[in-house]
Amino acid sequence: MAIGPLAGVRIVEVSAFVAVPLGAMTLAQLGAEVIRIDPVGGNIDFSRWPVTGAGDSIYWASLNKGKRSVTLDLKSPEGQAIASSLIASAGIVVTNLPARGWLSYERLTAAREDLIMLSLTGNPDGSPAVDYTVNASSGFPAVTGRGGEPVNHVLPAWDVIAALYVATGILSAEYVRSRTGAGQHVTLALSDVMLATVGNLGYIAEVQTNGRSRGPLGNSIYGAYGQDFETADGRRIMVVAISNRQWHALCSATGLTEKLAMIGPMLEVDLETEAGRFAAREAITAVLRPWFASRPASEILAALASGRVLHGLYQTFEQLVREDPRCSIDNPMFSTVVQPGLGDILAPRIPLAYSVSSVPSAMPAPVLGADTASVLGEIADLQEQVGERR
Amino acid sequence: MAIGPLAGVRIVEVSAFVAVPLGAMTLAQLGAEVIRIDPVGGNIDFSRWPVTGAGDSIYWASLNKGKRSVTLDLKSPEGQAIASSLIASAGIVVTNLPARGWLSYERLTAAREDLIMLSLTGNPDGSPAVDYTVNASSGFPAVTGRGGEPVNHVLPAWDVIAALYVATGILSAEYVRSRTGAGQHVTLALSDVMLATVGNLGYIAEVQTNGRSRGPLGNSIYGAYGQDFETADGRRIMVVAISNRQWHALCSATGLTEKLAMIGPMLEVDLETEAGRFAAREAITAVLRPWFASRPASEILAALASGRVLHGLYQTFEQLVREDPRCSIDNPMFSTVVQPGLGDILAPRIPLAYSVSSVPSAMPAPVLGADTASVLGEIADLQEQVGERR
Repeated sequence: MAIGPLAGVRIVEVSAFVAVPLGAMTLAQLGAEVIRIDPVGGNIDFSRWPVTGAGDSIYWASLNKGKRSVTLDLKSPEGQAIASSLIASAGIVVTNLPARGWLSYERLTAAREDLIMLSLTGNPDGSPAVDYTVNASSGFPAVTGRGGEPVNHVLPAWDVIAALYVATGILSAEYVRSRTGAGQHVTLALSDVMLATVGNLGYIAEVQTNGRSRGPLGNSIYGAYGQDFETADGRRIMVVAISNRQWHALCSATGLTEKLAMIGPMLEVDLETEAGRFAAREAITAVLRPWFASRPASEILAALASGRVLHGLYQTFEQLVREDPRCSIDNPMFSTVVQPGLGDILAPRIPLAYSVSSVPSAMPAPVLGADTASVLGEIADLQEQVGERR
Repeated sequence: MAIGPLAGVRIVEVSAFVAVPLGAMTLAQLGAEVIRIDPVGGNIDFSRWPVTGAGDSIYWASLNKGKRSVTLDLKSPEGQAIASSLIASAGIVVTNLPARGWLSYERLTAAREDLIMLSLTGNPDGSPAVDYTVNASSGFPAVTGRGGEPVNHVLPAWDVIAALYVATGILSAEYVRSRTGAGQHVTLALSDVMLATVGNLGYIAEVQTNGRSRGPLGNSIYGAYGQDFETADGRRIMVVAISNRQWHALCSATGLTEKLAMIGPMLEVDLETEAGRFAAREAITAVLRPWFASRPASEILAALASGRVLHGLYQTFEQLVREDPRCSIDNPMFSTVVQPGLGDILAPRIPLAYSVSSVPSAMPAPVLGADTASVLGEIADLQEQVGERR
């Protein structure tokens, strides 16, 4: 019994790597039935690292949870014909393959006039680009860290953002189709995702208006006060004070209100403004640092929490998994799934919660090709029914 | 005349900062009419940096493009009543304020039974968290850069990802309402966005399965070959070879096929596999580095492009704006808008393109409060019509 806001929606995915698989998985997490079609033996991402000791891809298992898996010989006319029938039957297809040949929008709409197709490319002209190459051009590596040489992010942020644009693109096209009956081809380029984001966050207008952008600031926050501190026991904590309330909370919780107030007259800045605190950030950090350096993290965290100071404890992935209660089945977003090849793993459902629509709990990724027979059987039944009605 | 897939949809936003404003702006970029309600004088983000010399916020202007702006005294019962009427009339509200008092889902649904409301919080329990604090806990800063101390990302990735979950949440709830008539309260926590993403990318399962996660790798790509190189003229270029095709392209384009092939027997690795290239990455980089270091960027870029090697030129924000043709009106995603206080700026529309639905070109952000009278007039007319029909 299908549950979730998108229960009843059927989507075919022909793709690899992060953006399209994660976009389609997002729709699966909302209750859509997502059928991923791969070549026999798996697509190019099937063994992508990290892998288990036995070579099973943790990456692939994590990005394909809750999908059905069909394998076909996509180089043969027969395999392409079956894939086309599946797409026509589902009515929605998402892909990062070039939209040409059997996978062209024209050929696919011959079998399903109101098809919704979403194609992701690297650049808008179809030339390749991936998260790492798009990120280099974005401007962000040049201001990440302390400067000198560019620092790449490790979070594949552009891929994840693109994935959610994929979900948004499909849902908005479905909104149109449900009202007008018209399907359409939706296109998205990873480089445009980057450029739109850089623009939406003001970096383009900043250069055009002020002639330059901000430089690297290490872990300081631009235009407000925010800094990381080492504790007596070697942990690190990020502290943030953007609003005046947050600033006063930080002053109070550390008991340093009087000393911090000396900075205003000393540097002739108004510490009751974000700009003033940003200008005085080094002095503020100098006053705060000994307080953090002389206390263990546990004591600091308790003081910051009870004083309602915005803060975050730095964690490694290991610490996140082993020590953060938000990353456990105590968080209703998570459940334990039995993943073939991996064993019991903690897996998230969609982070959205709905007061009326239930959302499916996390499900394991399929075994490659496990649903081929059943899905093809359903298609055959469907075609037989259509034939009988004629 | 409204255009875009969401033409005819009306949304009220009561929020500040990045995630909810960007989520609502995404829906505006798809054609929805978005009315942002702020306190008189602006919300807490109205002067957020970067600012122009005259103090106009480039940040605010960039995150509120194409919205209508209404200012109300939200602390007075009158202002709250007007805001409630606006929300009831629109039928959709997005907020990062606590859903209580006049803004509680219960009070708002008294005036509009099928209301869709989306509330974003920091943590699921309603306690505060922002991109910077959530990021500290995520595990990514610990593996960004070369190790030693954590490196914060500068791209507010969690906020941007959350924004697109906001758009996805609204569209999926609208999908349900259009079929069943039922509105609902959708909730989302920034910390869950981070945790879900860390899980979707396999980092949680990696710790659980292998007992540990990967360490910092500088600008190298994990589990494949990817590295940045300095050119003779002081630029940097990111080069990526994940697939075998990409690897052979890199060998050919640099003319170093034979030398690179010596690495396999030398290190006893199979360079025809991603894992082998990852294991041999230092030797590969050592062979490639002189080729890059002895040529200017222009020559390298031409060779990599004609050889179909995946690559990205590192750029500062200034270089992106001034030198990258993708970041100009030659890219149909961009147009020049006249932004009050900022002047002519290059602004993106939504990065999605639709074969049937037109999408609105970029529009400037409103002047704060500029639409108050017209929007309240429309509400008054609407209420009068409802009264006459009774």
